[in-house]
Amino acid sequence: MKVTVIGLGLIGGSMAITLRKEGVATELFGVDRNEANAAKAVELQIVDKILPENEALSKSDFVIVSIPVNATAALLPSVLDAVSDHTVVIDVGSTKNLISKAMTNHPKRMQFVASHPIAGTEYSGPTAAFHGLFEGKTNIVCEREKSSERALATALKVFDALKLNTIYMEPQEHDKHVAYISHLSHVSSFLLGQTVLDIEKDEKNIFDLAGSGFASTVRLAKSSPDMWAPIFEQNAEYLGQALTEYIMHLQKFQYLLMKKDSQAIHKIMTQANDIKRVLKN
Amino acid sequence: MKVTVIGLGLIGGSMAITLRKEGVATELFGVDRNEANAAKAVELQIVDKILPENEALSKSDFVIVSIPVNATAALLPSVLDAVSDHTVVIDVGSTKNLISKAMTNHPKRMQFVASHPIAGTEYSGPTAAFHGLFEGKTNIVCEREKSSERALATALKVFDALKLNTIYMEPQEHDKHVAYISHLSHVSSFLLGQTVLDIEKDEKNIFDLAGSGFASTVRLAKSSPDMWAPIFEQNAEYLGQALTEYIMHLQKFQYLLMKKDSQAIHKIMTQANDIKRVLKN
Repeated sequence: MKVTVIGLGLIGGSMAITLRKEGVATELFGVDRNEANAAKAVELQIVDKILPENEALSKSDFVIVSIPVNATAALLPSVLDAVSDHTVVIDVGSTKNLISKAMTNHPKRMQFVASHPIAGTEYSGPTAAFHGLFEGKTNIVCEREKSSERALATALKVFDALKLNTIYMEPQEHDKHVAYISHLSHVSSFLLGQTVLDIEKDEKNIFDLAGSGFASTVRLAKSSPDMWAPIFEQNAEYLGQALTEYIMHLQKFQYLLMKKDSQAIHKIMTQANDIKRVLKN
Repeated sequence: MKVTVIGLGLIGGSMAITLRKEGVATELFGVDRNEANAAKAVELQIVDKILPENEALSKSDFVIVSIPVNATAALLPSVLDAVSDHTVVIDVGSTKNLISKAMTNHPKRMQFVASHPIAGTEYSGPTAAFHGLFEGKTNIVCEREKSSERALATALKVFDALKLNTIYMEPQEHDKHVAYISHLSHVSSFLLGQTVLDIEKDEKNIFDLAGSGFASTVRLAKSSPDMWAPIFEQNAEYLGQALTEYIMHLQKFQYLLMKKDSQAIHKIMTQANDIKRVLKN
């Protein structure tokens, strides 16, 4: 089928690469307001050609909206307006509540499948895209009952080709869960990076001491602010809750540290070791 | 030369493996109060035999003390007491101030080289040990002027065989730097793990959503509490400072989140992106 990718970054680009490889996409159109990214995506043969948005939409059987979540919420209604009656549209946003609300009363709501493939790296843009990004990863579809059976079946064909494991969840539940399991990790990493960059102003060469542990915890601080600022804004309520709990735990730890209560600190760490249960490696 | 390793864990075990491979250690004696670890280290041929501490020390040219930092500070004086006059002793502790103080007035202080190879994984024990752990990593030697030229030269021969890059630093400076660049990462990771494990009690299956970003930031929460509780205790002052700054940044972020000031949040993330400069991958 003919596929349009709006937003030729890591996620949209990687989807395009795999959908072509798997024979699901026979023709790929790209839409990107960043001209350099658009040209790069053609050069890398991620898409066949760049088209004006409305032309691409009217010609496509399947549309992937893979742009920052604020832009997704703003653009989706007009995307649905522009597609033909058989076209299926998905988004890939890391927040779902606001996007779902923006689509609730759209006359073509049933042609839309709200989705969130939980995959990514700290890199962005078409050069970061690669085949296999989604393999074995979890994909969350929200409000499945608002999509038509045909739209859902088409979307699942795409998700299966990407080797995603699709599960279903309500938007609020989704946003709460990802606040803890993804968004909080990004905040902790950005601010850990900030803390150490700050101290570097006084302590030269401090990064000579950085080991692999530091690299691992701070890796996400390389992520794109353009992508993440809107996610944090849209998920401010749940992320705020998660942050409150995290800060509370840090303050408790600091109090125990001041009291030199190593036994209590040991106990907290032993409990946190339970994370082994949920991490594969 | 004949080498004794006190503490047959990840660090001591990995040193033994490489020193044998490089021909630096011709005979390796192990000392470990954990009998299972001791037996495992012999089984894995990490050391040739387990000996009582004093026997091992009296027979050795080189001694590696690789046990938790509280035990290191307590044990080092008696280790120096027991070795012959030509024997060189190193420790590998992640804090240096207290250990240095414990050794200041020891009559054999010049036979001791205080060191901290910044290497490790989240795993522990002799089964976690491997050749190559130290390759290209930074090693910090403190108070080099308190070691004899001969002791320093012998230790450097060992560090070079391990392919460590050795630099020199005062104990206070060392402890401050590692508080920010290593210890804080571990605290942030342990408490991120705790936060998400806590919420799991209410939100079942939340870990189905965990992606590689979460895994990366929380990896260090698998680390050994026996090793880390004494490090945090010994470095409570500097770690407390680092934690204070980190918490301050998190609270500022939370305030901006509540204000929906995405522009300010974007700016913080853009600044944190500067971490790319110091991370190789």
